[in-house]
Amino acid sequence: MKIGVLGGDGYCGWATALYLSAKGHDVAVVDNFVRRQWDHELGVQTLTPIRPLAERLRVWHELSGRAVELFVGDVTDYDFLSSFVTGFEPESVIHFAEQRSAPYSMIDRKHAVSTQVNNVVGTLNLLFALRELQPDCHLVKLGTMGEYGTPNIDIEEGYIRIEHNGRMDVLPFPKQPGSFYHLSKVHDSHNMMFACKIWGLRATDLNQGVVYGTVTDEVAFDEALINRFDYDEVFGTVLNRFCVQAAIGHPLTVYGQGGQTRGFLDIRDTVRCVELACMNPASRGECRVFNQFTEQFSVLQVAQLVQAAGRKLGLPVEIDHLSDPRVESEDHYYNAKHSKLIDLGLKPHYLSDSLLDSLMNIAIRYRERIDTSLFAPQVNWRNSSNERRPQIRVPETPLFAGRDT
Amino acid sequence: MKIGVLGGDGYCGWATALYLSAKGHDVAVVDNFVRRQWDHELGVQTLTPIRPLAERLRVWHELSGRAVELFVGDVTDYDFLSSFVTGFEPESVIHFAEQRSAPYSMIDRKHAVSTQVNNVVGTLNLLFALRELQPDCHLVKLGTMGEYGTPNIDIEEGYIRIEHNGRMDVLPFPKQPGSFYHLSKVHDSHNMMFACKIWGLRATDLNQGVVYGTVTDEVAFDEALINRFDYDEVFGTVLNRFCVQAAIGHPLTVYGQGGQTRGFLDIRDTVRCVELACMNPASRGECRVFNQFTEQFSVLQVAQLVQAAGRKLGLPVEIDHLSDPRVESEDHYYNAKHSKLIDLGLKPHYLSDSLLDSLMNIAIRYRERIDTSLFAPQVNWRNSSNERRPQIRVPETPLFAGRDT
Repeated sequence: MKIGVLGGDGYCGWATALYLSAKGHDVAVVDNFVRRQWDHELGVQTLTPIRPLAERLRVWHELSGRAVELFVGDVTDYDFLSSFVTGFEPESVIHFAEQRSAPYSMIDRKHAVSTQVNNVVGTLNLLFALRELQPDCHLVKLGTMGEYGTPNIDIEEGYIRIEHNGRMDVLPFPKQPGSFYHLSKVHDSHNMMFACKIWGLRATDLNQGVVYGTVTDEVAFDEALINRFDYDEVFGTVLNRFCVQAAIGHPLTVYGQGGQTRGFLDIRDTVRCVELACMNPASRGECRVFNQFTEQFSVLQVAQLVQAAGRKLGLPVEIDHLSDPRVESEDHYYNAKHSKLIDLGLKPHYLSDSLLDSLMNIAIRYRERIDTSLFAPQVNWRNSSNERRPQIRVPETPLFAGRDT
Repeated sequence: MKIGVLGGDGYCGWATALYLSAKGHDVAVVDNFVRRQWDHELGVQTLTPIRPLAERLRVWHELSGRAVELFVGDVTDYDFLSSFVTGFEPESVIHFAEQRSAPYSMIDRKHAVSTQVNNVVGTLNLLFALRELQPDCHLVKLGTMGEYGTPNIDIEEGYIRIEHNGRMDVLPFPKQPGSFYHLSKVHDSHNMMFACKIWGLRATDLNQGVVYGTVTDEVAFDEALINRFDYDEVFGTVLNRFCVQAAIGHPLTVYGQGGQTRGFLDIRDTVRCVELACMNPASRGECRVFNQFTEQFSVLQVAQLVQAAGRKLGLPVEIDHLSDPRVESEDHYYNAKHSKLIDLGLKPHYLSDSLLDSLMNIAIRYRERIDTSLFAPQVNWRNSSNERRPQIRVPETPLFAGRDT
């Protein structure tokens, strides 16, 4: 199948592109490298030293014999996006090309506006490009479980049957997103449902949980293919960050009580879920929603699992409770359905000690690259503007100290 | 009360600004005149010859003795918007400053994107400006009944109590908006709910129905204060358009069967509802939703009411059923609650023969300005790009025909 991976240089996108290429699909990656630019803006680096995309793709081609085509550009630029759709003629497009960090969107007004404009306009452009140029192409869009918030009822997959005053309808599940980023995904979801209805497009909205892990079979082929591993407070996902903290004896930074419960999944399941969605496309006119996670944990449970795994490795792991920088419930009901991808054949990689070991060992391997100043939350939801300047790490003793110059 | 009216040069905004000024409030109007620019873009004119805003405000001041302050600028420009908030220090801000036409948003991709970016960014800017500069100010935001679509259950005012699998919660009412414009309002609503939650802002989202009428007590003072009366297929609201059609013997253009049922209200109720919202502000942290309409009718019922009223005036009124350019249900359940504004004291002006007479008489008075080429729908929801070029009206016999030149 001809599959376009928008945002294919990012964390989930890169793993997905290689996985699909290895599976024999004809893959094209679209990226504008803004994710790498955000690292520079924030003064952060992925734990793992990722290579430039052109080099990654060259090495992949050499090792696997499989070429992945590259289109460099911005999906908010319609001329570029339509030239990609016309040039590649994808049968499926997987849309990862969005700003995906909640804290980034909460830094200040400019970051909130740029997140929403970037994400909403990119998705609108994609909907129009498919309608105009490739109407049978299946759009596989990354949403987030965070679109639902934490309602006091079971969370269904996208739609809920509501009985009300003696009548019944199946309606979009009410959304209570918790950041300007999560809101952008809700906006996208509404735009997609509408476009499928009026134009007969086919779409799958993958409401993904919190992803952890970094190693997929393909990126393990060679050091040059290594994936991102973000552990900073802005782009790092919680389990990855805890493993890095555990590896160097830093207390795990739990926000508040840690009762915040979320759906989680291994990145090896991310890539498989995306493939399952592609291989089982939505019907024309259908906007289907899958909840893409495999287990739910509270943040404190995640911390305790990391603590236990760390102690087995002889690491002294403490848990710190920081004041929660987010506005969210720290103790709530949470029961989100997630059977549709299982029904399509997903065999989950449940969170295991061996995975935690592997993550901590990666962290130990790259410990020289860890900047502990990136752990503490600097973006507070209650502020409308957060001072978040890059931290410059300096050695305690300047290299040239005491020299006559 | 110090009240800012954003979009105060528009149809609802102008009527509201004068009404509030007449009631003794200290009113400021914010506008960038882009609504007038859209008329030029589309080659359309309001039926009524509206004056430039500066002249309108000068005449109002002369006649009423009441000054309305004017801030010219764009709410998507944060520097401008914050200078208004700082300079005027409003206690309430009424936000009409959005692109408010569904067909305009459906012309093509650029109009869809510009509508969503304009509306979403303007509202985000306003939320940030209030948080940073005037956190106790009450935001009164114009939403639309079109956010709800036409579910098969009763529509509640913003929130619905849902029992599901033995548990209960009160959640945002599920939204099924029917155009990129309506979607922009849904995006705004989600952004507002979140901002109220995290920052303790106070907001009222007025989900307004289809407005009709043009004369409020204040604009009737003087010809120079006359309000807009849009009858074209892009910005005209349906009852106003039917009255213009009836006045000149043009068949009423009903889309499809005409079973599309919507909430309607007289513009004299719009201004009163807005005042009621201002005088009874939401609490800090509350994002309250009122459904702002007084009666519901199907489009065919509206046409039949206009037909009957026209015939009483001796006008031969026919009803044409055009193929529906929109993607919408032409026959559906509709029962939307609208008691909260009544509870606050609204005394509705129900649709009456005298109102219809008055509208048709206005149309007769300005019949020379009616361009019948503007009645036919030129924007089809099923297309992703609609050719909509301004029509140039030419007299049947050129003025200079036959002259030697």
